[in-house]
Amino acid sequence: MFVAKVLSGMRPTGRLHLGHHHGVLANWVRLQHDYPCLFFVADWHALTTAYDEPGTIEQNARDMVIDWLAAGVDPERATLFVQSRVPEHAELHLLLSMMTPLSWLERVPTYKDQQEKLLHKDLTTYGFLGYPLLQAADILIYRADRVPVGEDQVPHLEFAREIARRFNFLYGQTGRRRPDGEPELKTILVEPAALLTAAAKMPGLDGQKMSKSYGNTIALREDEASVRKKIRTMQTDPQRVRRTDPGDPDLCPVWQFHQIYASEEVKAWVQQGCRSAGIGCVECKQPVIEGVLREQAPMHERARRYEEEPRLVQDIIAAGCARARQLAQETMRDVRAALGLGRS
Amino acid sequence: MFVAKVLSGMRPTGRLHLGHHHGVLANWVRLQHDYPCLFFVADWHALTTAYDEPGTIEQNARDMVIDWLAAGVDPERATLFVQSRVPEHAELHLLLSMMTPLSWLERVPTYKDQQEKLLHKDLTTYGFLGYPLLQAADILIYRADRVPVGEDQVPHLEFAREIARRFNFLYGQTGRRRPDGEPELKTILVEPAALLTAAAKMPGLDGQKMSKSYGNTIALREDEASVRKKIRTMQTDPQRVRRTDPGDPDLCPVWQFHQIYASEEVKAWVQQGCRSAGIGCVECKQPVIEGVLREQAPMHERARRYEEEPRLVQDIIAAGCARARQLAQETMRDVRAALGLGRS
Repeated sequence: MFVAKVLSGMRPTGRLHLGHHHGVLANWVRLQHDYPCLFFVADWHALTTAYDEPGTIEQNARDMVIDWLAAGVDPERATLFVQSRVPEHAELHLLLSMMTPLSWLERVPTYKDQQEKLLHKDLTTYGFLGYPLLQAADILIYRADRVPVGEDQVPHLEFAREIARRFNFLYGQTGRRRPDGEPELKTILVEPAALLTAAAKMPGLDGQKMSKSYGNTIALREDEASVRKKIRTMQTDPQRVRRTDPGDPDLCPVWQFHQIYASEEVKAWVQQGCRSAGIGCVECKQPVIEGVLREQAPMHERARRYEEEPRLVQDIIAAGCARARQLAQETMRDVRAALGLGRS
Repeated sequence: MFVAKVLSGMRPTGRLHLGHHHGVLANWVRLQHDYPCLFFVADWHALTTAYDEPGTIEQNARDMVIDWLAAGVDPERATLFVQSRVPEHAELHLLLSMMTPLSWLERVPTYKDQQEKLLHKDLTTYGFLGYPLLQAADILIYRADRVPVGEDQVPHLEFAREIARRFNFLYGQTGRRRPDGEPELKTILVEPAALLTAAAKMPGLDGQKMSKSYGNTIALREDEASVRKKIRTMQTDPQRVRRTDPGDPDLCPVWQFHQIYASEEVKAWVQQGCRSAGIGCVECKQPVIEGVLREQAPMHERARRYEEEPRLVQDIIAAGCARARQLAQETMRDVRAALGLGRS
């Protein structure tokens, strides 16, 4: 019996914000009801671009997992684990490296992209070039066949599929032929399919996409006073200078928040009130504040016990790592056997 | 207390021959009296160039270890293990890859060399490019500070030294300065020094260097009848056509064997007898046959119990792997801590 499996990971970049929630975590929470899910902290991946600033990875990983739990990821449904605690990922990565043409890695579009984006950093390292291969190993080692990805990650997934095909072709030949004359292959590694997720449009406090690097975020577990203050002081339509000036929601970052948090009724109230100068900006922001706080309330609630008892988080991660490792070891047994690396 | 440690490995290419004995094993046997030694089967390395022909690695590994034991490597003195059974090598390789400039790997002279030599094979793989890095991980994970190398391997060892220095510089800073103003560093990874070994000049049956690819070998455990036949039929000075023609030892492959196996007395007898047509070629070969058989006798003797009871070899390897793994894990604990990859 074959059960589809979902795998997804996140680099431990520190506390998550509402952009992560709407972009990734809400999706994870939905997926965990439909599939067995594996969600992991990609701490080795953090080293590909931050190899010269370690030391924060561990704390970041712990904070991040609390955010996952806060968002509603359920450790009873999903397996939560840390990549570096399943060292089999590194072994598969190494073994796959032997049959991975350099050109396949060089042509992954994000390779040149990232190098151009992060010019202040020397990214011409062996590990950075191999980044998509480590991702492929992360996926293939669990025989995960559903991977939620955004449009920009599709080439990485295609790369993982190619690697699986190449491995099966080189090491899975049964010696028989299929009716069409092609060699019959065993499926040692499973080709993962993309679960395309629409890019989330969570705005930041300044109207740009919410992102830590823009300094425009509301943290997932931001405390109430801070949420109120951040939204109260956020910019509105710059052309509405006086209370009596009519405004244009299309030019106002607050309107983007209403699109996420407000009912149709409230939206109509905003449109009408703003364009007619019938309501002021402070008034207009009130439902946004309430919406964000309403969304965060159950998150704070869920997070509280983990904040108070970090031991609980450690236990969840330990149990997840043990489960993940068992799956990884099953795959590695087959991979080693196929390569003739037995236990002499 | 610091104890110098020797590490050396060999790819599992199948049964070893007398060239391996004179070139490598005799040296290992000497070294094991002077240092704690770690000798390993580099089975993952075999995949860098033979990724498309696995399946023989395991048998080759077992045969090779029997040859080591036959040659006098003493499992009570040295730790014998198999690389793939200490998966920490792969983990260290991955972690080091994050801080290894691509250019360092591209400039290792053997990279282009081997590609040119093995033109029939596609060696532009990610794993082949990373070959010296895997070697570096093999060495550094044991904090081995003595590595027997031939002249051609010196650049690889220099690469491993550079990697150790870079790692200590990036992750070993204590925050203090040395008297000379440079940052004070902890030695997390130890820089290995070369134990330069003179290239062995073991001739093959045709006068070229003994090598499997030339088909001119005598196996370490070749049986007596086969040794006699191979030497009896080996070419001699091609200009000595008839028994009555005087010969020239300098043009005769047999003379090269005398240089290894014969006493001064026998050598004088050969020189005089050959040049004067006083002895025939069959006669001249007799001391070589005796010399080779004399060298092999204790090897056969030592090998016999392992051939009869393969279980013994498995036990030796299992014990060696356990010992090696313990050392590897100690290093990895320090490496992970330095990188901030704790056990959250």
